[in-house]
Amino acid sequence: MQGTLQGRIDSKTKPHGALGRLEELALQVGMIQGTAHPRLSHPHIVVFAADHGIAATGLVNPYPQAVTAQMVLNFLQGGAAINVLCRQHGIGLRIVDAGVNANFMELLGVEDSALIHEKIAYGTRNYLEGEAMSREEAERAMEAGRKIVSGLHKEGCNCIGLGEMGIGNTSSASLIMSFVTGVPVEECCGRGTGVNDQQLETKIATLRSVHRLHVQAIAASPDVVTILQHVGGFELAMMTGAYLQAAALKMVILVDGFITTAALLLASLLDAKVKDHCIYSHTSGEQGHQRMLHYLDARPLLNLGMRLGEGTGAAMAYPIVQSAMVFLREMASFESAGVSKQE
Amino acid sequence: MQGTLQGRIDSKTKPHGALGRLEELALQVGMIQGTAHPRLSHPHIVVFAADHGIAATGLVNPYPQAVTAQMVLNFLQGGAAINVLCRQHGIGLRIVDAGVNANFMELLGVEDSALIHEKIAYGTRNYLEGEAMSREEAERAMEAGRKIVSGLHKEGCNCIGLGEMGIGNTSSASLIMSFVTGVPVEECCGRGTGVNDQQLETKIATLRSVHRLHVQAIAASPDVVTILQHVGGFELAMMTGAYLQAAALKMVILVDGFITTAALLLASLLDAKVKDHCIYSHTSGEQGHQRMLHYLDARPLLNLGMRLGEGTGAAMAYPIVQSAMVFLREMASFESAGVSKQE
Repeated sequence: MQGTLQGRIDSKTKPHGALGRLEELALQVGMIQGTAHPRLSHPHIVVFAADHGIAATGLVNPYPQAVTAQMVLNFLQGGAAINVLCRQHGIGLRIVDAGVNANFMELLGVEDSALIHEKIAYGTRNYLEGEAMSREEAERAMEAGRKIVSGLHKEGCNCIGLGEMGIGNTSSASLIMSFVTGVPVEECCGRGTGVNDQQLETKIATLRSVHRLHVQAIAASPDVVTILQHVGGFELAMMTGAYLQAAALKMVILVDGFITTAALLLASLLDAKVKDHCIYSHTSGEQGHQRMLHYLDARPLLNLGMRLGEGTGAAMAYPIVQSAMVFLREMASFESAGVSKQE
Repeated sequence: MQGTLQGRIDSKTKPHGALGRLEELALQVGMIQGTAHPRLSHPHIVVFAADHGIAATGLVNPYPQAVTAQMVLNFLQGGAAINVLCRQHGIGLRIVDAGVNANFMELLGVEDSALIHEKIAYGTRNYLEGEAMSREEAERAMEAGRKIVSGLHKEGCNCIGLGEMGIGNTSSASLIMSFVTGVPVEECCGRGTGVNDQQLETKIATLRSVHRLHVQAIAASPDVVTILQHVGGFELAMMTGAYLQAAALKMVILVDGFITTAALLLASLLDAKVKDHCIYSHTSGEQGHQRMLHYLDARPLLNLGMRLGEGTGAAMAYPIVQSAMVFLREMASFESAGVSKQE
């Protein structure tokens, strides 16, 4: 199959290899789908939203915790960056309440078909004082992530990007990164949505304390559920399950930025093959993401200094992957166009 | 105006600066158009095709000269990479016969509205033996480029990408680059559409000879028309005029790869302000392009290892620039969405 696919790529009216990464993408998506005629259908971005106990302390985040719920409402009203980019590119968008500290049933009054209710709890507990969640909550969140992806797949979706929203979640992602990769937590930790120098110092000191508090328990049992239990977030746990299921269903996965890549680190621990399904959309402006990508041996498509989350990098990369599909499908061959080949 | 525009960008529901390059693009396009509400309308790619006398020698190009005309027919039939990408993104496409060694009136039998007839001659003369074109031909080509852009502008187009097709034109572009920047021609010269090591050696030796033959005349009168006259191509001359006119008409210019950037080097010599209108779409896989971009102090949006020409890099970058327009137009503000600002 790989030979047939490469043959199709090389038959197109262009110098050999001249479409660069587009040719690699055509090959990758073809291999994922097991066909020389790959096609993306019903692409979706799923934004997992959740709150973090640590955020209430104000030690790690410049925005108040209430912003998580406010942004979910903004998503549902179509006014956030991810809404705009999904509309531009014809990408479906679903928002998941993975554990936001607000009751959307009450806030909205009516059902909104874009909102998926999978709330594990009204935010995690503060991991400065103990475990962020129970083992059962971590497992339930991962299972919910799997279920959501299966539902989209049943609707005909074979290309998914994961996004997130959660005030304080760069801290959880930094801690996960540190525990998975062994990189000191201060080197994993960046400015998130924009802390200043003083706030960054406080954030680093806080995350060091958290690390010290949980390092022994995690070292004793360094599995994915234990890491999530101690320093995770509900959106991170749900995305971990979502990645695993997307790969199991042979879907194309668009990987977004720092937080979503932290969940991918966890999913990869459980199944290294998940990475074969991943297209790395961009290098985030969040310090630490580049190091994560290096750890994953990933070469992202874009580097636009974006650091917004929500799946915005994945949405920006989608048209590039789509270009790989359409050149393979629509370009003429040297033979069909009557163009002479290299001498 | 700049303050108003920056204020609009900062009012959107995202951390300050979190959309990275998209925010810079919104600002740049707003400044070009002189409005806080910029908008791209009727975007077009114009592909300038022409033949080069040197190509008949086979010293610099692995493809036969006939491919230029064959590819023009492929463009008109919709089967080339640039056709596919323009269809994907809703970009209009025009092909210009700037000087192809074929008679398209005869070949086609009927008029094709996508083809613009501005043939200066049936290819340039071989610059290994003398001047590539007359001074008058260079000036006529530049004027044709201006006219084509004016025509598109009258149709409502305010965003243009230039592309090219011409077997042998990386050689002309390398020579132009060397004469404009002072970089030795062997460092400007790359593999083009794919010469092998032996062919590259021959290409470099050939371009050194061409350089020696013309260096005195150009040094004596180092203006744009003289450079074009000695080592240019008709597509390169036409694009030089096209850039100048696009800037004069306050259009947004998407700069493609190695050959189109060589024409921009010439246009910039005549009017340095052209560069303010340019968005650099990508870094080409053609060695020398990166050095050109450095010379222009340009930071391209994409780096996908593409080296196809035709304006394909510009077409790939278009949706990114469009994202900058739609976030500015469609995203909610903190106030309108009821989202709390940074504390």
